[in-house]
Amino acid sequence: MRRKVVFHIDEIDQWQRTSQNIHNLCDYVATVPEEQLQVIVVVNGDAIQGYLQAIGEQTVAQHPSVKFHACHNAMQKHHINGDQLPAAVQIVPVGVLDLIQLQAAGFAYIKP
Amino acid sequence: MRRKVVFHIDEIDQWQRTSQNIHNLCDYVATVPEEQLQVIVVVNGDAIQGYLQAIGEQTVAQHPSVKFHACHNAMQKHHINGDQLPAAVQIVPVGVLDLIQLQAAGFAYIKP
Amino acid sequence: MRRKVVFHIDEIDQWQRTSQNIHNLCDYVATVPEEQLQVIVVVNGDAIQGYLQAIGEQTVAQHPSVKFHACHNAMQKHHINGDQLPAAVQIVPVGVLDLIQLQAAGFAYIKP
Repeated sequence: MRRKVVFHIDEIDQWQRTSQNIHNLCDYVATVPEEQLQVIVVVNGDAIQGYLQAIGEQTVAQHPSVKFHACHNAMQKHHINGDQLPAAVQIVPVGVLDLIQLQAAGFAYIKP
Repeated sequence: MRRKVVFHIDEIDQWQRTSQNIHNLCDYVATVPEEQLQVIVVVNGDAIQGYLQAIGEQTVAQHPSVKFHACHNAMQKHHINGDQLPAAVQIVPVGVLDLIQLQAAGFAYIKP
Repeated sequence: MRRKVVFHIDEIDQWQRTSQNIHNLCDYVATVPEEQLQVIVVVNGDAIQGYLQAIGEQTVAQHPSVKFHACHNAMQKHHINGDQLPAAVQIVPVGVLDLIQLQAAGFAYIKP
């Protein structure tokens, strides 16, 4: 099966749990040939600061197959520029609109 | 695109984040003519008390195009009558059933 | 209507709210003959310990029509064996994959 999921992080504390979730999920799916998984992580609110901390940098670096999105509104509020983010992170205008669009495109939603 | 989203608030602390989310979302969508957005906020649990506080009253007043629902079970538990709620708020029997029905009707779910 | 919902618990604190949600939901639906409801609860992360506490045991015992799932990864991390769980609980390999599969099967998602 081809499956799609979006994880939503909006509090700094949720980075650790989400990172563990993604790790367990990718590890397991790698052992099941018939499962194909597309994972996107949408980060907004105060959690945007996690991209500048070890937990965010490591989570992004450890999962090259996962896409990471950053809410531009949250970046502005926290005075974060695009060049401060890990290079793989994609900026979206509004994190919650991204979540709406992804669910409309068939992504399951998980809030760790 | 015509899009639909339901925000779920069940803790007082989530009012502030949700209010900011709705504000950013509506601001952005107003600049994109091809995006049409229907937003509903379902409030249950302890968060029901937010409708009687400045944060809830202001959020409702500032977004006349957004629909706000209040869980009747939560109102009873917190001894809140319908006439204490902002006039625009609609009472639903059970907040979680409302969330189930809205998702079945194609609404994306976001838990700030 | 035949409706399906999955509740996600990954923090111990969410057990109480979820238990109340399920109670209110099942009580109400029992009074509405045309509503049929399938409820699954997926527990992962630190919340897995709730199955060994009074709140988890009572919630499972009080709702024989609700299915309760336990994430095997979370069980391993917290050194919990299957025979420590209430008998009705079903073990799934990875809680978040379960959440993805259930949403793909039409279940609404609620994070209390």
